[in-house]
Amino acid sequence: MENIIWVAGHKSPDTDTICSALACAYMLEQEGKAAVAVRAGELNKETQYALAKFGAAAPELKTEIPAGQPIMLVDHNESKQAIDGLKEADVVGLVDHHRLGDLETEKPIFMLIEPVGCTATILLALMRQRGIEIPPTIAGLMLSAIISDTLLFRSPTCTERDRQAVEELAAIAGVDYAEYGMEMLRAGADISDLQPADMVQTDKKEFAVSNGTISIAQLSVMDTAPVLAQKEALLRELEADRAAHSYEASFLMVTDILEEGTQLLFAGDAAKVAAAFAAEAADGEVYLPGVMSRKKQVAPPLLGAF
Amino acid sequence: MENIIWVAGHKSPDTDTICSALACAYMLEQEGKAAVAVRAGELNKETQYALAKFGAAAPELKTEIPAGQPIMLVDHNESKQAIDGLKEADVVGLVDHHRLGDLETEKPIFMLIEPVGCTATILLALMRQRGIEIPPTIAGLMLSAIISDTLLFRSPTCTERDRQAVEELAAIAGVDYAEYGMEMLRAGADISDLQPADMVQTDKKEFAVSNGTISIAQLSVMDTAPVLAQKEALLRELEADRAAHSYEASFLMVTDILEEGTQLLFAGDAAKVAAAFAAEAADGEVYLPGVMSRKKQVAPPLLGAF
Repeated sequence: MENIIWVAGHKSPDTDTICSALACAYMLEQEGKAAVAVRAGELNKETQYALAKFGAAAPELKTEIPAGQPIMLVDHNESKQAIDGLKEADVVGLVDHHRLGDLETEKPIFMLIEPVGCTATILLALMRQRGIEIPPTIAGLMLSAIISDTLLFRSPTCTERDRQAVEELAAIAGVDYAEYGMEMLRAGADISDLQPADMVQTDKKEFAVSNGTISIAQLSVMDTAPVLAQKEALLRELEADRAAHSYEASFLMVTDILEEGTQLLFAGDAAKVAAAFAAEAADGEVYLPGVMSRKKQVAPPLLGAF
Repeated sequence: MENIIWVAGHKSPDTDTICSALACAYMLEQEGKAAVAVRAGELNKETQYALAKFGAAAPELKTEIPAGQPIMLVDHNESKQAIDGLKEADVVGLVDHHRLGDLETEKPIFMLIEPVGCTATILLALMRQRGIEIPPTIAGLMLSAIISDTLLFRSPTCTERDRQAVEELAAIAGVDYAEYGMEMLRAGADISDLQPADMVQTDKKEFAVSNGTISIAQLSVMDTAPVLAQKEALLRELEADRAAHSYEASFLMVTDILEEGTQLLFAGDAAKVAAAFAAEAADGEVYLPGVMSRKKQVAPPLLGAF
């Protein structure tokens, strides 16, 4: 196993992290390198739906990486979001579409970050440059990633390149991306079996701030009413999670995919939250119309305020 | 000036930093962006020779960047090597071939790092991908950068891509790269007017270590004898520079381009230097046969030991 490159996305994996890990491992193998996709956490329902649709096996679960193990990172670069043990591993590459965080490397490695909506969009360009053929299964996974990250082109992070990539990949995968995309998002938005304690963990990411850490989870649904009906329980769970991890503050974005807006629930200093968004933040919630992107619209003002 | 992107390399600029800043600013302009190359320090003789050969003007000297000024970084990414004020500037892009250091960005930006011998080699690939025509002057500057960073293909950092890039660029620039390359390196190796105090500042870079900072300068010459004849004075200057900046240790690589080896002079803990290279390090010097690259062969063991 030692020389096989692990390809891994972030903890609390989402569809981009899982599908881009699989696509990137495929790319490396086509270049003659031994590589295997791994995942640092449980699959969400949306990702399970995408993997089943295109007949792909889930990456193996690996919650910790051995020291010295070569790893290529996709879809993240902050140590808090990475598989445990990363500091002692051998990072050999990175493809990402997030801000540059605290990653440092000992040697120069291949690193490409681009401000597009999805890691898979960047991987498509790399495969084109490198003359790598994309089979239908991989194309299906990559377009699932882009539809997921851009909420079917609704997110402000979506670029023209993401749209074009989906069209190109849909032709290879042989799917109607608009129809399949809504099905996939609906599968991911199914919260029927989620308890409030699960909801506050959905797609949770940690961010370093000057005095510690904040966490931001995101639940994207077709209808926020059934979620917000449990607001008091969600706020209790956010507070419990905040206390358990000594976070400065804990957030849950309840994002309405169809209405294109976010109800942000939080446990933490309401004055800072209000300042971050120049909005009223009372009773542990603030409504953010038009806001769908944690990366572009929620994390930056919160990182500034905390 | 506010919206014009500055393109800047590192302090103590070398030929790659200057020529890649000029080439990158040209690339951005061809893409319809307003950009201007700047330099964070004085030109060395090798770079002056290259600029004169291809009829290019030097970038404007800027030792500090105003807050909020957009800047694209080439050939470096560590804050200690960057233009003063970078933390408050707006970093909009990075093309580099060094290890990833302490840079962080607020937003996702275009960042490409590749483990090749020279930044200009990466810029050539980007220009090809983007369909940008390369005029002879820019080609000449880019091949000068590659010849400089790889010491005309002698450095262990040199890759096949660097060699191919030089051949491709030489055809555009219309020069015999082997002949011109030796002339340029000879111009840079001319130390006739350098005092020991100047020598220890040549191409000096700072690196953060756990307890502070170390500095590593590099002087590449055709004959080390005239330099090493002044060893006692050089060690005094290294010690003075170390004390002035409170460095943990100060190093000067005296690299013999033709013999392909480095006499490393230092002020600092000899036991740590000996441990870094598993070699004898007495009287402020250690000989490192075959060593020509600070990035690949000198900085990593020293960063490990200090």
